[in-house]
This record gives sequence, C-alpha cells and structure tokens, in this order.
Amino acid sequence: MGVIVQKYGGTSVGNLERIRNVARQITKTYDQGNDVVVILSAMSGVTDQLINSAEQISQTPDKRELDVLLATGEQTTVALMAMTLIEMGYKAQSLLGYQAEILTNNKASKARILDIGANRVKDLLKEKKIVVIAGFQGADAEGNITTLGRGGSDTSAVAVAAAIKADQCEIYTDVDGIYTADPNICDKAKKLDRIAYDEMLEMASLGAKVLQIRSVEFAKKYNVPIHVRSSFHEEEGTMVVNEDANMEKVVVAGVTHNKNEARITLRKVPDTPGIASKILSPISGAGIQVDMIIQNTRSGNMTDLTFTVSKNDYQSALDISKQTAKEIEAEEVIGDENIAKISVVGVGMRSHSGVASKMFSSLAAENINILMISTSEIRISCVVEEKYTELAVRTLHNAFGLDRTE
Amino acid sequence: MGVIVQKYGGTSVGNLERIRNVARQITKTYDQGNDVVVILSAMSGVTDQLINSAEQISQTPDKRELDVLLATGEQTTVALMAMTLIEMGYKAQSLLGYQAEILTNNKASKARILDIGANRVKDLLKEKKIVVIAGFQGADAEGNITTLGRGGSDTSAVAVAAAIKADQCEIYTDVDGIYTADPNICDKAKKLDRIAYDEMLEMASLGAKVLQIRSVEFAKKYNVPIHVRSSFHEEEGTMVVNEDANMEKVVVAGVTHNKNEARITLRKVPDTPGIASKILSPISGAGIQVDMIIQNTRSGNMTDLTFTVSKNDYQSALDISKQTAKEIEAEEVIGDENIAKISVVGVGMRSHSGVASKMFSSLAAENINILMISTSEIRISCVVEEKYTELAVRTLHNAFGLDRTE
Repeated sequence: MGVIVQKYGGTSVGNLERIRNVARQITKTYDQGNDVVVILSAMSGVTDQLINSAEQISQTPDKRELDVLLATGEQTTVALMAMTLIEMGYKAQSLLGYQAEILTNNKASKARILDIGANRVKDLLKEKKIVVIAGFQGADAEGNITTLGRGGSDTSAVAVAAAIKADQCEIYTDVDGIYTADPNICDKAKKLDRIAYDEMLEMASLGAKVLQIRSVEFAKKYNVPIHVRSSFHEEEGTMVVNEDANMEKVVVAGVTHNKNEARITLRKVPDTPGIASKILSPISGAGIQVDMIIQNTRSGNMTDLTFTVSKNDYQSALDISKQTAKEIEAEEVIGDENIAKISVVGVGMRSHSGVASKMFSSLAAENINILMISTSEIRISCVVEEKYTELAVRTLHNAFGLDRTE
Repeated sequence: MGVIVQKYGGTSVGNLERIRNVARQITKTYDQGNDVVVILSAMSGVTDQLINSAEQISQTPDKRELDVLLATGEQTTVALMAMTLIEMGYKAQSLLGYQAEILTNNKASKARILDIGANRVKDLLKEKKIVVIAGFQGADAEGNITTLGRGGSDTSAVAVAAAIKADQCEIYTDVDGIYTADPNICDKAKKLDRIAYDEMLEMASLGAKVLQIRSVEFAKKYNVPIHVRSSFHEEEGTMVVNEDANMEKVVVAGVTHNKNEARITLRKVPDTPGIASKILSPISGAGIQVDMIIQNTRSGNMTDLTFTVSKNDYQSALDISKQTAKEIEAEEVIGDENIAKISVVGVGMRSHSGVASKMFSSLAAENINILMISTSEIRISCVVEEKYTELAVRTLHNAFGLDRTE
C-alpha cells in the first residue's frame, strides 16, 4: 500500500480497446490498496497528425498556438480513460496540465516545469479517486498552455510523483526495461534490475531512448524511484534509483551506441588564439548543438579541428563550416556521416582505473580504428566507423563481463 | 470603427481551406479599424465523432469527462485559426473558455454562463490582437471544464459581446438571416431586416433553428444587437434587436412550423382534483418536457387530457402514460405522431386584436382542422394534422400579408 504514479505512453492508449486494458491494470494497482495517479500521453500518431495540420497552415506555425493544438491530444486520452474507469465502477477524474497545477516557464513547445502545486491531486486522492493527468502539458504563469517537448509525459510523471511524494513512479513502455546494450545488436544483453540516475542520464543522452532525459534529472533531484517496465506483461522492469555501494562494484553498467551523429573536420586551420571559437560560434549561433570537439596537436602553424553534430543538423553545419573555412583560410572541410559513437557507462568507473585502456585495447584487438574519444566521470565514448557499430558493442559487452550467461 | 464579435459555426471552419476563408473575412473587418473578437465552434462533424467515441466506452458516459473530451473540438479550431491569422501577418491569440474567464455553473454538458471576466480579452484587444475564443465551453468555479449544450457557441458569442460591450455580435451561419417562414415550404417567404428579441425567442423555440435560445435571452438581457448573416456572401442578414414602435405596427412577423412533437391523449379520465398532476408528474419526473396541455370540458364525471412532447420522448412518455392510465382507471391512451404545430409570432399582437380569429378562419377556409390551440402574448399556435403543414404555413403567410411581392 502506497502512492503509485503510473505513466502510459501513446502505444498503450492507442485505441479504446487498449485504453480498457490499461484501465484494468490501473484498477488492479488500486484494488491492492494503493493511491493511484495516472499520467497519459496522446494516442500514438495523434501528435504527428496535429503537427501535420499545423504545418499545412505554416512552415513555422506559431509556437504558442501549436501548444494549444497539441494539448488536445492528451486531453482526449485522459477524458476517455477517466470515462472508462468510471464505467468500470471506479471513482476517477481527469486533470489537464493547468488543473494539476503544473507550472512551467513560457518557452512554448519545450517548456520546463518550474513547480507543481498538486493540491488538487492530493484532494482527489483523499476522496479515493483515481487521478488521470494529461502528460506533456502544463501552463505558464499567465495561464497559457505549454508543452514539454517530445517524451515530456515522462517528465510530467516524475514531477507529479515528486510533488505528491509518491513511493514509486512506474513508466510503462514498449520495452521490458533498461538493457546492458541494445538487444537487437547484442543478443547477450541482459535486462538490468537497477541502474543509477547518473548512469541512466548518460545512457539516455547516448541514444537509449527509453526515458526523456529531463525526467531522469527530475527524478535524481527529488529522489523519485522510477520503475521502467513493459505495458504488455507484469514482469519487473528496471529500477532507476540513487546509486549505492553495490552499484559501484560494477565498473561498466552498459554499452550504448549512437548512429545519429556526423563528423566535420576543418583541416589546416591557422592555429591562432580563439580559432575554435571562431569556428564553433556560428554553429551554435544557428541553434546547432555540438557534441564532441577535438583539436589536434599543432603541426607547424596549422591544426585540425573536428567536431560532431546530430545528423539532422549535419548539412547546415557543413555549409556554415565551409563559409568559416573561407574566412579563416583553412585548407579544407571534410564531412563524414558514416560514424557511430560507442560508449561504456558506469558509476563504478569513479573508483576503478584502467577502463579506458581496456576499452581501447579491446577495440584494437578487433581492428576497429578509433576516430575520436571523449570522456566524463562515468562514461567513455569512442567514435568509430559506422560499419563497426555492432561488432564494437558486442566486443565491449563481452570485454566488460556483461554477457548474459544462461 | 468599433468592437465587433464574430461567431462562425462548424461548417464555416470545417477544414483548413475554410478556416483560411474565414480568416480573410476576419482580417477584412480588422483592417477597417475594428477591434475583432472571434468565437468558433468545432469543425463540423467533430463533436459527433467525439460523442461516438465516448458512447463506445459507456452508454452514459460520465458528463464531466465528456465535457473535457468535447472541449478539444473548439480548442483545435481556435489554435488553427490563430495560427492562420498569424501566418497572414496579423497579431492574434487564441483563448479557451477558462482563459477567457467564461464562468459557468457546474452542470456538465448543459452549463449556464454565470459571469464573464473578459479582462484578458480586453487586454489583448488593447494590444491590437485579434482574439480567437473557443465557443461552447467555459469552466466552473473549481476550474472544471464545462460545455454549454448544442448551439452553445452562439451563447458564448453573445455573452462575450455583452462582457466587452461590443457594438455588434455577428453570427455567421449557413442561412441568409431570419425569414418570415421557412423558404423551403413557402417560396414567398421574405428575409426580415429586423426582428425583436421576443419574437426571435418564440421563433427559436418553435423550430427556427438559427440561434440557440439562450443566446437570444442573453442578448435581450444585456441589449446586445445580434446580426445573423450568411458566411457565404456579404449581404446584410437580419438584426435581432430591442423592439421599437415600427415593429409593433406589424401584427405578425413570421409563421413557423414544428413537426418535432407528438401528442398523447388519455381518454375518459375520472375528473377528480389533482388528476392532471397525477398524469403529468411521472412524465416530468422522467425528465421529459411537456409543451402544450389541454383538458377537455367535463362530460359526466369524465374528462380527456391531451398533451404534446418532443418526438424523441414520445415512446417513453407513451409507456409512462399507459402505466398511469391503469392506475387512475382511464379508459384508454391514444398517441399520435403525425401532427405539426403552426404558429404566428409578432410583438404587434400585443396591440392588435383579431389575430386568433383570423388565423382560425384562414385555416378553416382550407378545411384544415385545428386539433389543439395555445397562445402567449405574442404568439398563437395551432396543432394540425402533419399533412397540412405546408398548406397551413402558406395560407397564414398570405393571410397576414407576409407574402413577398416582386
């Protein structure tokens, strides 16, 4: 018995039959004596459909109005879910973002949650009602509807869980949990029982698209345990929690890969102070995020500068770089879309040495050339040629002792 | 130059192309130097579609949640309209019912407007923005979304017009205005330039489905001039306004008909005190509205009691009446669905006599038998056999001098 927040994604509520299935799952938790708060996404496909309508009106639809439009998606599912629960004989009530007092800043389409009042949620729970909250949406201080960006319902769920001090926040999704590597690539990948917030943050930003990064940041900040689990069966998934001593014993928790980056190199750049800034400022000025940056050691008065960007931004970044290259008289600009970033992640790295050298030597043993390297306290990433992605993931998975043993 | 409220129905905003057409019409009014507030319905068909979804979940979907669901319809159109106006280079902003401070009571699905703050509307007008408000919806004191019932967008429009003291409230619809009779039946029907609120109220409740009755009540109470006009061309429609001396010179403003009622007669009812109440209480207890009631003069100890109800309620009213007939030992219950109510309406009746006798004699001259009669200060209604509907309307239209002369 406790307070449980459950979040269901768009596929789980994709039609009325699925909504009924989810309703049965909700009432099961309720019947066990728990207070239950449910966060829902829009039915799968609906958000894209709405965006499509808006784009028929304008290539750059007004963001405030787009949020008003998109918010109808979750409004529809929460109303249908509450009706379904009531039809099943339960007390239930829907709340939209502003009704659940989800206060955000005023950045339409990518608002950040500032505060959650949650008084109304608590009142409804006292009345023993199942509370069904529209995910992905909130309202700014003036009462304008805002949305939280793709995957924002995860963040809604964790934020509500934090506000009502829930015992657990269950994220129901179409995967079983968090794996040590992508099971589609590495058939020896294991489901993790537990993973630390920081590890999850690194994994999420590296391409394991299970949870929105901000939801994990929120969970870490307010110490909300997240249970990532399948909406198709009842097996336990993966708990995302504060790190503890046991976790630190494991050097590497998982191996991730990301094929969604591209690399740009400016060759023979005059090595003068401020040259990196000259090259990268126009890139970030265009709203493009740069991931890894490497400047080679100087040879003569010249140096090479290499950086990676998301493949979506590759063409614009390349165009900008060519322009810059002319201005600073660099010799040439080389672009490469056929790369992949392979990373090993683990809080245990903080207290273990030799992880990097083991990673490099394992890849070398398979003749996989490392193009770029970057590290954080709990992560080491290598850029390799894209064709080596699967081999690299399996090699490292085995090297760091993650392979499933039957 | 003034403050203009424009309301467009579901057909006018039925797709993106039509929304663009309406947007052009709005900006034309704005470009003439007016402050413009627009009230929109859901795209035609959308509300029915949403109700259909809800009814797949439950035969009696929870009304609070149904309102949350239905409100998405208008939310979608106002967002798309605001985007369209902004894309055309105008300043515009959408407001949902609660954002426009449309406060209602808490009767879900048929809420009544209690108050409109409209501060935000006024602020936006000061910023020279076109304000696009979701019709049909409001919020109760607790912030729950409510809807105003079918045709509620008309009432939203008039209420907003009253709150901001608009110079005019234009209701754009698929008819040209208010006619002296249904042009489909009576080809000599004329469009009225002006009609009094009270006349419009009688006409609306008698089956001229152009305006929601409550919107006219609101307009009368706050003295808001309504301009009912076509959304397909620019010709002037009909002004619904306070009555004046000129109007009183016209005895009959229009002839209306209503085929949507049915008649139930309890024959040979023991004529004891309270017998009408015994018969009608169970009917109204079942939520069925009774329109006309006639009790025949007594013959012996027995009397006949006849009343009419909407055809939708006919079967249940008949079943209830049969049950009552048994209990009070009435001889029999006779039902008749093949009736029509023909009415003449006009504020001039207050000061002119002889209208009733002229009506009865005109009908008699065509051998049309009158089954029931009821009157108000500005209306006389006769129930006749349904097959005489068209003939009766044309006869009265001519008799009261309403026929169009080329």
